[in-house]
Amino acid sequence: MRVKASAPGKVILFGEHSVVYRGPAIVLAIDRRVEVLAEPRGDDLLFIEAPDLGVSGFFHEGRYHPAAGGRRGEGVLRPLWVAVERTMERLGRKTGVSLSVASEIPIAVGLGSSAAASVATVAAVGELLGGGLTPEEISLLAYEAERVVHGTPSGIDNTIATYGGGLVYERGKGMERLESLREIPLVIGNTGRSRSTGELVGRVRRLREKYRTLVDPIIDAIAHIARLGREALLEGDLWRMGELMRMNHGLLWALGVSSPELDRLVNAALEAGALGAKLTGAGGGGCMIALAEPDRLGAVSTAIERSGGSSLRAGISRSGVRVWRVEG
Amino acid sequence: MRVKASAPGKVILFGEHSVVYRGPAIVLAIDRRVEVLAEPRGDDLLFIEAPDLGVSGFFHEGRYHPAAGGRRGEGVLRPLWVAVERTMERLGRKTGVSLSVASEIPIAVGLGSSAAASVATVAAVGELLGGGLTPEEISLLAYEAERVVHGTPSGIDNTIATYGGGLVYERGKGMERLESLREIPLVIGNTGRSRSTGELVGRVRRLREKYRTLVDPIIDAIAHIARLGREALLEGDLWRMGELMRMNHGLLWALGVSSPELDRLVNAALEAGALGAKLTGAGGGGCMIALAEPDRLGAVSTAIERSGGSSLRAGISRSGVRVWRVEG
Repeated sequence: MRVKASAPGKVILFGEHSVVYRGPAIVLAIDRRVEVLAEPRGDDLLFIEAPDLGVSGFFHEGRYHPAAGGRRGEGVLRPLWVAVERTMERLGRKTGVSLSVASEIPIAVGLGSSAAASVATVAAVGELLGGGLTPEEISLLAYEAERVVHGTPSGIDNTIATYGGGLVYERGKGMERLESLREIPLVIGNTGRSRSTGELVGRVRRLREKYRTLVDPIIDAIAHIARLGREALLEGDLWRMGELMRMNHGLLWALGVSSPELDRLVNAALEAGALGAKLTGAGGGGCMIALAEPDRLGAVSTAIERSGGSSLRAGISRSGVRVWRVEG
Repeated sequence: MRVKASAPGKVILFGEHSVVYRGPAIVLAIDRRVEVLAEPRGDDLLFIEAPDLGVSGFFHEGRYHPAAGGRRGEGVLRPLWVAVERTMERLGRKTGVSLSVASEIPIAVGLGSSAAASVATVAAVGELLGGGLTPEEISLLAYEAERVVHGTPSGIDNTIATYGGGLVYERGKGMERLESLREIPLVIGNTGRSRSTGELVGRVRRLREKYRTLVDPIIDAIAHIARLGREALLEGDLWRMGELMRMNHGLLWALGVSSPELDRLVNAALEAGALGAKLTGAGGGGCMIALAEPDRLGAVSTAIERSGGSSLRAGISRSGVRVWRVEG
């Protein structure tokens, strides 16, 4: 038997950085997914390949033995090993497994590819071992895998990859799931410059320590945008969302987390007729998102690519993790 | 007898747009000047030429008769006619005058060239008619001339052109002159795109009407930056000024008054090592300013020019209007 599972990536629509201090972050699952094919092996090894990344290797007793791509595969594949281990522990069964991971989502640019891969891995291996994991369990097991590589993640990425749709996350208030949202036509622009979330969060923290009376009101304003953005999202008011996104980008600029590449793509998207555009995620590189009427999506994509970014059209993914058995 | 007078242009360092609502604007006189040469004529006409702009013409009983450049000269030259008229009324003397205006400051990009020309004109014509005008009178007469073309100007530009140095202006609180400031090494980057101050002020007003709970805190934050910026300026703390300028640019972005060209020049300056950079004035085009250590000024200028702007190095002008008699 072979099993496939897939889970969506995500974008942060509003609230990056402010969510570290207060107020909500609004996150959308995107209809770009990571797919994991799992099949049992005759031995007790875990083999994982990610052909898109040109890496593959074995995990045996926690040690990584590269097959292709050398040691650089270890960082990406280790959380999947943890996901498999935790899933087997949870289900009380153990077997050798081969996993093949295919992603429609670029990695390490804040689009949640890592959590989507972990969620899909847990779901695929769970099904392979007899199934019965609830979505809550899948999300939690993926969270544990993510924790290995990402320190103390917020839990947003694994949750959105599990459930799809929209999510409002606020520290100390947990998650609110937004369902039956209207279509939100997005273009994601990728600067191709990877960045460290921790470093950018640290940059804002240091700025805040130095200019508390200035940075706190900016954080408050971003948090307020996120609250207004949640309402606009629920109403499907694209115009309002666009205006809020533009203001949000400026405030993130003020916090020092934009970059020349991000500004170039944001300005290009707006000049091409996007209703709004902003960096998404930690900033300093990574991705921006543009919101546009459907008939402007092509022009916005083109403008982003002409400005040196790669573009990816995306809508909301209403479905979260999916798992199915594959014949043959 | 011939008389020359000159007066400096200005940049807004902090507080553009917020000053319309509350808090201070911090303005610096720059060591780039407008010079006016005045000499008496045998007739009762006023002839004004601005060779840099390729325009010249006569004013007779308030009507403009172009000599060079056609009617486009009228808008630039009319306030100077008013300045001459008011000065003659004030001094109770009347004579024909020829004026020649030479400017080191590009016009219509928010650098105060118009007020500097008016101030220099009042001073030159005043001296030609026997002198005795106080700086207060020169500034006021220039203000009256500015009012003809600029509606209800704040009075900042004529004041700074008259006195030089730095100026803190706050609605309802008047002007505070800042003297004996330390050198502030600036590069001005000109996008070459002219803009309408009124239109941009209107854009912020409409955004505020729609998102009052969001725009007011942003305006408050800009006003707070201007207050902190005043302190940093008085302390000569370039680092702090630079950080405040960067935050200020982001907040102005959030208000929708930056432009792709301005962002490009701001980012280029920062990447070239500027301590801070921001749009200056109304935005939407016009100019940006970058603050840099003296040894980085060249690199910052080059970066601005490579990014499609024209650059102008400037320091603070400690002297305001100057007037002197010319032999021959």
